[in-house]
Amino acid sequence: MSNFVPKLLFVFVLGLPLVSHASELRLLIDMLHENDMVSEEQYDRLLAELEQNQQQSAKEKQQITEQLELVTQPPEVEVTTKGGLRVSTTDGQFETRLRGRLMIDAADYDGAPQIADGTNIRRARLAWSGRIFSDWIYKLDYDFTDGGELKDSYIGYTGFSQARLRMGLMEIPLGLQYRSSSANSQLIERSLLGAFGGDRYIGMMADTKRQHWSATAGIFGDDANEQRERNDEGWGVGARVTMAPINHNNMVLHFGLATFYRHLNDQATLRFDEQPEARVAGFEIVDTGIIPGARTYTRSGVEWAAVGNRWSAQAEYMVTDVRRTVGQDVGFSGGHIQSGFFLTDDSLNYENGDFGSPQPNHHVGDGGVGAWELVARYSTLDLTDEDIIGGEIDSLTFGLNWYPVPMLRFSANYINVLNVDGGPSSGQEPRIFLVRSQWAF
Amino acid sequence: MSNFVPKLLFVFVLGLPLVSHASELRLLIDMLHENDMVSEEQYDRLLAELEQNQQQSAKEKQQITEQLELVTQPPEVEVTTKGGLRVSTTDGQFETRLRGRLMIDAADYDGAPQIADGTNIRRARLAWSGRIFSDWIYKLDYDFTDGGELKDSYIGYTGFSQARLRMGLMEIPLGLQYRSSSANSQLIERSLLGAFGGDRYIGMMADTKRQHWSATAGIFGDDANEQRERNDEGWGVGARVTMAPINHNNMVLHFGLATFYRHLNDQATLRFDEQPEARVAGFEIVDTGIIPGARTYTRSGVEWAAVGNRWSAQAEYMVTDVRRTVGQDVGFSGGHIQSGFFLTDDSLNYENGDFGSPQPNHHVGDGGVGAWELVARYSTLDLTDEDIIGGEIDSLTFGLNWYPVPMLRFSANYINVLNVDGGPSSGQEPRIFLVRSQWAF
Amino acid sequence: MSNFVPKLLFVFVLGLPLVSHASELRLLIDMLHENDMVSEEQYDRLLAELEQNQQQSAKEKQQITEQLELVTQPPEVEVTTKGGLRVSTTDGQFETRLRGRLMIDAADYDGAPQIADGTNIRRARLAWSGRIFSDWIYKLDYDFTDGGELKDSYIGYTGFSQARLRMGLMEIPLGLQYRSSSANSQLIERSLLGAFGGDRYIGMMADTKRQHWSATAGIFGDDANEQRERNDEGWGVGARVTMAPINHNNMVLHFGLATFYRHLNDQATLRFDEQPEARVAGFEIVDTGIIPGARTYTRSGVEWAAVGNRWSAQAEYMVTDVRRTVGQDVGFSGGHIQSGFFLTDDSLNYENGDFGSPQPNHHVGDGGVGAWELVARYSTLDLTDEDIIGGEIDSLTFGLNWYPVPMLRFSANYINVLNVDGGPSSGQEPRIFLVRSQWAF
Repeated sequence: MSNFVPKLLFVFVLGLPLVSHASELRLLIDMLHENDMVSEEQYDRLLAELEQNQQQSAKEKQQITEQLELVTQPPEVEVTTKGGLRVSTTDGQFETRLRGRLMIDAADYDGAPQIADGTNIRRARLAWSGRIFSDWIYKLDYDFTDGGELKDSYIGYTGFSQARLRMGLMEIPLGLQYRSSSANSQLIERSLLGAFGGDRYIGMMADTKRQHWSATAGIFGDDANEQRERNDEGWGVGARVTMAPINHNNMVLHFGLATFYRHLNDQATLRFDEQPEARVAGFEIVDTGIIPGARTYTRSGVEWAAVGNRWSAQAEYMVTDVRRTVGQDVGFSGGHIQSGFFLTDDSLNYENGDFGSPQPNHHVGDGGVGAWELVARYSTLDLTDEDIIGGEIDSLTFGLNWYPVPMLRFSANYINVLNVDGGPSSGQEPRIFLVRSQWAF
Repeated sequence: MSNFVPKLLFVFVLGLPLVSHASELRLLIDMLHENDMVSEEQYDRLLAELEQNQQQSAKEKQQITEQLELVTQPPEVEVTTKGGLRVSTTDGQFETRLRGRLMIDAADYDGAPQIADGTNIRRARLAWSGRIFSDWIYKLDYDFTDGGELKDSYIGYTGFSQARLRMGLMEIPLGLQYRSSSANSQLIERSLLGAFGGDRYIGMMADTKRQHWSATAGIFGDDANEQRERNDEGWGVGARVTMAPINHNNMVLHFGLATFYRHLNDQATLRFDEQPEARVAGFEIVDTGIIPGARTYTRSGVEWAAVGNRWSAQAEYMVTDVRRTVGQDVGFSGGHIQSGFFLTDDSLNYENGDFGSPQPNHHVGDGGVGAWELVARYSTLDLTDEDIIGGEIDSLTFGLNWYPVPMLRFSANYINVLNVDGGPSSGQEPRIFLVRSQWAF
Repeated sequence: MSNFVPKLLFVFVLGLPLVSHASELRLLIDMLHENDMVSEEQYDRLLAELEQNQQQSAKEKQQITEQLELVTQPPEVEVTTKGGLRVSTTDGQFETRLRGRLMIDAADYDGAPQIADGTNIRRARLAWSGRIFSDWIYKLDYDFTDGGELKDSYIGYTGFSQARLRMGLMEIPLGLQYRSSSANSQLIERSLLGAFGGDRYIGMMADTKRQHWSATAGIFGDDANEQRERNDEGWGVGARVTMAPINHNNMVLHFGLATFYRHLNDQATLRFDEQPEARVAGFEIVDTGIIPGARTYTRSGVEWAAVGNRWSAQAEYMVTDVRRTVGQDVGFSGGHIQSGFFLTDDSLNYENGDFGSPQPNHHVGDGGVGAWELVARYSTLDLTDEDIIGGEIDSLTFGLNWYPVPMLRFSANYINVLNVDGGPSSGQEPRIFLVRSQWAF
């Protein structure tokens, strides 16, 4: 409510008729004087009295005007709650936000191999972020599932023009899918490219977002769980650049390039594996096992996306080259292409380098049916090279999303694993029916 | 503060004397005209001037009235803090709440067996719940003790008349004790029936609460910690119905029935055990051990409760029938009866199917002594049947509760284990002195 | 914004010219009557009309004054966000605060022994505290790093004059370094005396803080992680007294004494070890190993601190005497002396018994350079006595702190281990370059 009282009081000030309209009295007095009804002496006394009272009224009006101008100063703090909590000072210097994310999954796995049907709390997160003294930001994000894990948690400086410098625990800048929040992926899980994505390390990162391009670069140490006594931790560097030659009015054309180099810590082991686009059972359908002698790897990716009102499409391709002290160097790769179409008058929400949450134009409970979206994706991942037989997999996924109101989403996915060639589950192609209920803000 | 400024400003509008009371001036002008002191022409000019000024005043009054009516619009957001934090929009569409619970226990165990005296943080919980777009709710509840555990965490829809549909991690609908919050149990711990209670699973649940009855039914998968690769998770269904033929003015008569069927997951093990109504040491005084071949079980319970002003009583009885693939099917049972009496002018707080937190009528620090309550309970539990010798136990517990102000409670319990027959601690009957300091909102 | 609207409206009331200044009209009427221009009857009617209107005006003014006095009542709730969140009722009865702490470290270890270079999230904490019904307080503090750990979490009573009584999980009252928050230590980590500090147990503690002295005493059970079935938990008692004969205007002279006695639980093991004033690698450079037969210990410390505007100094010395059932009783000791100097016009913030967070006088982004501080410390620790050869270590640390704005701090430390004599790393003296980025409120 904070910001409308002063505005209206301001209007109030302008119209305040606090000087009595004494002109008719002055007129009468003048007429009586003119008609000789009052003496000169009486006339002077009357005018003096009138003058004194008018001066008094004007002075009081001035006082009130000044006082009311003070009332019209903006409020110091604004509080809003639209699915989370946001408290900010109106001078823009300070802000505190509480945000959360809850995802509830259930899956039915059919066909070989036997995979565990069941339910899962996929994410239960609470994030506290804020701004202090205009130019400094912080975030603390925690996932309460599976015993708890710290997510993006950093301190940052935003005093540069349109750029940020952050220090702390952050995801590496790689891949359109992983740069967009898990809450905004069009299908329930990200694609098979997840085998190469989503690493979080402690480091320093700079980024900038503009309407037609974005750039991010960072240098990282090891993850937050890694605390070794003797062996130096690993480190890495990475960068991502995106361009959006078209980005206006729900029309988007996006391209991106990213690369990430990582030097493992002296005793670390490298392993790539992936579940079949559902994460209820915890079953890895392709898996390199520990790659002996792996010391460094370089991962590179290209991305493309397009939005045309209700329709959207995106594709990514990524390669990971592993250098080893034992055996041949190996390379793995994967990619996906996906397309979505809103049955309702809605559109994906491009945020200058990644995708935000769709905002249904017509809410359930307000005469609308929310936003409904159909999505299809083809994914492929090859974790077999030289002596490492992790397996190759192709998968087709169909999905339906319902956003009844902003912040809520209910999704159903049908995942059809087309082919698994090599690795622990070679020749076994499960089909999965997966549903998710999601609250995210 | 949000909601009183506009109300008062509204009053302000009505009483505003913004049209000057010009009637005495008009009277004077008329008299002078009547007495021929002013000419017709002068008289007309005076009346014109007076009229113009009065119109101007009326117009300004109208402007101000309209402006002030805008000020009297309700505030958009209300913030309250009475032991927690609640931010809501005044249109009722959005709400965010932070709630917490902290319980600090100390116990002295006497007699055989030797059990560890000591202290314990029994619960340290933070819950974030809210409402978005009127009809949708969410909750995320976490217990920070013992490495952390997710508690009731769900998404729900409340757009039905007086009913809720929720999805997520929830406690099964069974038993008056477990349907009432741990913060509101009259004795420090729930009764020996705890051996059969408090399971939380991921599922879907519908419930409704009316003044004279309540009903809940749900279907569940497995718990949030269960993530298996190959073996399907377990599942269950349950329902609870309560009736309250009397429920007004601190007079309550409550009956309830509940049943819960559970199919264990393919590799799950079933085990029932219980501590002696104190949970500081972690010592299980009766314990079936793992029940070989258990595949499903059905648990049923009856409940009764009554409140008559300061006095209250409740009783529950529950049976659990286990079907096995190995050995005979087995059944276990237990029950309790308890009664409480407030020494002060206070009463239990019945909430249409469970008990809420007592609100002391006279606060400490405000001339009162808070609420003081005496409670006694007899509990019995039989975990022995066929080849499963878990033990049978009877116990008598006496308690004193002090609620100095709402949200705070200090309790002392004396637990006298009367008899332990069979099982790991057969013939050993400890006595326990247990105290708790509790903050809960 | 809550508290300025009423203040200004109050001023508004005083200056409100709501009685029309009718004195000139009365003057005119009297003159006309005196000049026989109006009859007696007319004069009386005019005066009656004037009187009635003036009474009406006075009455309306009275109404408005009363209404506006209501508006000037203080707001019910105040919300502030200056790096955290604070919601309080203006009657002082209720308050809720959210506070946090995030510390991001990176370290480069040189020389022998080989210690792991790397990064670390040192602390990621969220604390919820509050006040209810004036006299009762609570706190729930959690560190999300390393799987999560409950920190100070208690319920307390503050209804005594200037004193508190608290129950729950709390740090023992020992040592100036550990009584001051980790966010406010002048060097990144506390000194080698950390081997003897920072234990948290569940218990009860009373304390009071005055301008020239403070006193704390507590009795404790075991820690929050300790839950044993059979063996009684340990317990302890401790007290600390400080005096500050000088404490005004950034001039402080502080002395302190503390002692803590602890009886271990029946199966507990006692061990003292310490890292070299950096906690990135987790490497303990001195370590007694488990001390066989340890049953109780007594720890005593003396403290001294002084502040003179930009300059500060502090020193502590501590001894721990262990009584054993096996072998000789043993004693360990340590101490440090440190001094800091602000390059800018700033000063340490003494809070009557411990040190709070420095508040830079000139903020970055507001024309200032923040606060810059140089610090040096010499620490020594001797963990060798009788058959226990934990090692003796001396260390010199230099540090630079930059506080660009309140709540933020960036620090760089150079730690030079001068000598390690005995124990697992005898003769190995590493040098460490350590940096920290810190947000704390």
